[in-house]
Amino acid sequence: MPYLPGRFINLALQLRVKNWQSYIPIVPTLARYRRDDLSHDIVAGIVLGVITVPQAIAYAFLAGLPAEAGLYASLVPMVIYAVFGSSKHLVVGPVAITALMVAAAVGEYAPRYDQSYLGVTTVLCLQAGIFLWLLRLSQMGGLVNLLSHPVITGFVNAAALLIIISQLPALTGIGPGDALDPYHQLLNLARRVDELNPAVVAVGIGCLLGLWLVRRYSVALLRLLRADVEDDHPVRRTGPMVVAALAAVVVAVWNLDAELGVAVVGQIPSGLPELTRPPFHWQLWTDVAPVSAMIAVVSYVESYSIGTTLATRERTRVNSHQELIALGAANIGAAFSGAYPVAGSFSRSSVNYQTGARTQVSALVCMVVIVLTLLFFTPLFARLPHAALAAIVMASVVGIVDLMSMRRHWRIHKEDSLTEFATLATVLAFGVETGLITGVALSIAFFIRTSSRPHIAIVGRIPHTEHFRSARRYDVETFPHVAAIRIDENVYFGNANQVESKLLKIIQRRPGTRHVLLVMSAVNLVDVSGLEMLYRLNDNLAAMGIKLHLSEVKGPVMEHFEATDFTMRLTGSVFFTTDQAMRDLAERT
Amino acid sequence: MPYLPGRFINLALQLRVKNWQSYIPIVPTLARYRRDDLSHDIVAGIVLGVITVPQAIAYAFLAGLPAEAGLYASLVPMVIYAVFGSSKHLVVGPVAITALMVAAAVGEYAPRYDQSYLGVTTVLCLQAGIFLWLLRLSQMGGLVNLLSHPVITGFVNAAALLIIISQLPALTGIGPGDALDPYHQLLNLARRVDELNPAVVAVGIGCLLGLWLVRRYSVALLRLLRADVEDDHPVRRTGPMVVAALAAVVVAVWNLDAELGVAVVGQIPSGLPELTRPPFHWQLWTDVAPVSAMIAVVSYVESYSIGTTLATRERTRVNSHQELIALGAANIGAAFSGAYPVAGSFSRSSVNYQTGARTQVSALVCMVVIVLTLLFFTPLFARLPHAALAAIVMASVVGIVDLMSMRRHWRIHKEDSLTEFATLATVLAFGVETGLITGVALSIAFFIRTSSRPHIAIVGRIPHTEHFRSARRYDVETFPHVAAIRIDENVYFGNANQVESKLLKIIQRRPGTRHVLLVMSAVNLVDVSGLEMLYRLNDNLAAMGIKLHLSEVKGPVMEHFEATDFTMRLTGSVFFTTDQAMRDLAERT
Repeated sequence: MPYLPGRFINLALQLRVKNWQSYIPIVPTLARYRRDDLSHDIVAGIVLGVITVPQAIAYAFLAGLPAEAGLYASLVPMVIYAVFGSSKHLVVGPVAITALMVAAAVGEYAPRYDQSYLGVTTVLCLQAGIFLWLLRLSQMGGLVNLLSHPVITGFVNAAALLIIISQLPALTGIGPGDALDPYHQLLNLARRVDELNPAVVAVGIGCLLGLWLVRRYSVALLRLLRADVEDDHPVRRTGPMVVAALAAVVVAVWNLDAELGVAVVGQIPSGLPELTRPPFHWQLWTDVAPVSAMIAVVSYVESYSIGTTLATRERTRVNSHQELIALGAANIGAAFSGAYPVAGSFSRSSVNYQTGARTQVSALVCMVVIVLTLLFFTPLFARLPHAALAAIVMASVVGIVDLMSMRRHWRIHKEDSLTEFATLATVLAFGVETGLITGVALSIAFFIRTSSRPHIAIVGRIPHTEHFRSARRYDVETFPHVAAIRIDENVYFGNANQVESKLLKIIQRRPGTRHVLLVMSAVNLVDVSGLEMLYRLNDNLAAMGIKLHLSEVKGPVMEHFEATDFTMRLTGSVFFTTDQAMRDLAERT
Repeated sequence: MPYLPGRFINLALQLRVKNWQSYIPIVPTLARYRRDDLSHDIVAGIVLGVITVPQAIAYAFLAGLPAEAGLYASLVPMVIYAVFGSSKHLVVGPVAITALMVAAAVGEYAPRYDQSYLGVTTVLCLQAGIFLWLLRLSQMGGLVNLLSHPVITGFVNAAALLIIISQLPALTGIGPGDALDPYHQLLNLARRVDELNPAVVAVGIGCLLGLWLVRRYSVALLRLLRADVEDDHPVRRTGPMVVAALAAVVVAVWNLDAELGVAVVGQIPSGLPELTRPPFHWQLWTDVAPVSAMIAVVSYVESYSIGTTLATRERTRVNSHQELIALGAANIGAAFSGAYPVAGSFSRSSVNYQTGARTQVSALVCMVVIVLTLLFFTPLFARLPHAALAAIVMASVVGIVDLMSMRRHWRIHKEDSLTEFATLATVLAFGVETGLITGVALSIAFFIRTSSRPHIAIVGRIPHTEHFRSARRYDVETFPHVAAIRIDENVYFGNANQVESKLLKIIQRRPGTRHVLLVMSAVNLVDVSGLEMLYRLNDNLAAMGIKLHLSEVKGPVMEHFEATDFTMRLTGSVFFTTDQAMRDLAERT
């Protein structure tokens, strides 16, 4: 089979020919760097750092990891992406959805394999990174397309609900129990409602209120101070920083942790991450591989779509191949620096763009802020209450819930609505992996089902033109001895039998037919099953004394035909245009 | 969701409107029956019966069941199909491939559930029948299309090899061992080669030789006697009857069973089948359900393709809906008459057709032959040697092996060849179910992969015509400020990103572009992911000062657009033809 090796050779040639700089996009960026850019990048980087620190701690908490894991995830991976990524504004680090997937995996596998959380998370990162690189090497990055728009929408909605439910224990002070599914988590809360800690609830609700106030009124407040502020000014995103600081101060001043049992983050070890080595435990590797693959796909889809959105605003593009390399490298970097799987963050990338970052240098500035935090400021977070982190996480995901999309899509494509609903329901009921697989399987099934019921139209000439349209929709000229039939679908295994059956039905209803002309303008693919059907159709029509002709066969389809003796066996002719075919056939009898 | 219920109501209406006679095709047949037909049907029915008896016993043996199960499977199910089936010539009963699948299921589940073989086979029949009826009720019969031509070819080849290997123990007298996979079966034979029984081998090889002689020389022999015999005369199919009779006589005369240990069929209980009740054992039902579903699909595909082949020779058609009902009923009949899953038999249906059967009445005549056999002639088969049955089974499947098809398909569609090979290999290595699922999954994966790399062509006018063709293949007129681009694929989740990326790349390479015209003549479907992409493309082009236009949008796609505000948001226009669009856009700047 020279097929796959051939593709790898092609790829190798392509890699060699390409400029090495295109693999390290920061090099051309720095080469063209202007002094003017620096002040913008420094401002953006500092704002980014201030916003990243509380988010990173909150998402580590969501993933069930200690706070430093979140900070480490914002350090090495972010820098690696800045060096290799093709987007100037994308900020890579801890995000809510992968944190949720990590939480499920750590909860399940860390006790089973007697590993610390690091054992599991570093394997997840390393596998996700390798998986992304494999997608690039095998040129199968297109596989992520299988996560169709409805699957992603359904999944994101379900994940947001799961995340909100997972934060309720921290927001109420009720013990989380050990249930993994949302129903039992809610049941656990209801059953143990007497454990509710009023102080924790007060802190949590205060934080939620604070986040809402900053989001709602910070811009208005700024406008009172100075005039020209955009509606989407980054100050709206400073809520997490503000409420985290206030909550820590409140806890410290009234000593809420010791006196009223408000859970706090506790001492964060200061200092930079050390080199970690993912454990090579075969059973653990095979067990978490499916989760890693899912994390890789989800983080790639999320990062690529954010990168594309920001790039089109600047009229540039991100390179999907390079993104696989950069995101893979970032995750592998996470594996060796004690972090957990990373992806492009929507909120932080937006802030980076809006504060005027010009290049990836802003991420390097952000790195300095995080390094300083790790070296000197970790003690400040010791009395940060869990309830504040829960509030930050909930506020960050509540904006992405969009349950109306199903209703909107219903009008366009009912199958897509059903897929979205099924993905949502199965993610909630059976977890992220099962849900995504169900969604993808449904997308494919509905697509095959739709294309297995092809639209087949008898066409005729629109008088005095060279245009041929459906005889049902337009008033067209036809001949009784010629059936001109347009097949509006690829002819492949999914519909070859239906196409054959529909064609035979049409011909049986028109007893005078001597010539059948298949108009192939909408047929982009004929596979072996389709070709077998055409052979059979040709023979069966010949037995009835009817000739089979083709027109407007596309180049790639004609090449398939010419690799066989099909055009030789054809009882009729292959015409370039339907117009020529109809002129010719009109005169035959 | 008014969607699914709506379909069931439609179906109900459709069922009520249709003539009840169309559900029992034998009624109109008998109403129009002519005296002249009867003699043909009687001759064909008797020949059919004579050929069926040894085949039925041989396939029961292949399925690992006693001989009477095969005869029962040729009785009630055949009659039920004759009453309800829409093919006049299809003969339903035991066939080799379902026998192989039954053998695997009985071998695995009968010991585990402490059931006699009947416990398992009747559940298999009943479930397969119910599954076929469900396919009809849910109008999902199109699902069987997923068994693409390459999957079926690969599967049939692998099944033929498995069947031949499974018969080697009986042909050599070596104990079969308890291995289920072919490698260990062959290994077992090699290891126990000293158990080889020369008498058994002699009988087996004699039978194979006899079958070959009948097939090769019977027509020539007939021609010596009387002149006009067709090449494909049914006498060629009498081999099983001839060698079975001769082998039984040889065994009886020389007392080979008692003296040389040649295994024989033994006493077959005489009399008609009694009413059996499939056991309702929940665990057994859920365990065998996947096998039953596979048996249902395989038997439907096989029966439908034979029925269609014979019907087109008569210029009639079989009704796929009615076939699901009839085949389901035949299998349910098998469940209650102590038989095992049935399907349309290629060899017996061909004989039925070639001996001149005119209607389903020939099957009723065949029934009489089998009833007489069961009542009076079963003692004749007691000394039929297993080696003869093995020879009959092997000869019947050796003709269907076609290993060259992969090479032929390689030239047409490489993906189809790979699918065929993978199906063959996984059926051999992991069994029928895993193999078929692998094949179907690969078919879908390759199809999605192909359509995720859509062909997108810049088109231009062929001078002095209204035809627009690819600018790469033809010498055409274009305008620098208009990019007319034809998308040669459905725009759906599988390729929306690639289409967008290719379009943007084309536009970036043509800096003077002010208008982009998408020629939609080959786009038969735009799903939600595709529509989201078009919205995004429209906005992104607008940001670059480029207008987006569409032409030749098909009716169904236009309906989707009109369910949204897409055409309103579109910066350009929707043109009826590309000709009009280009005339209009040529004058704009």
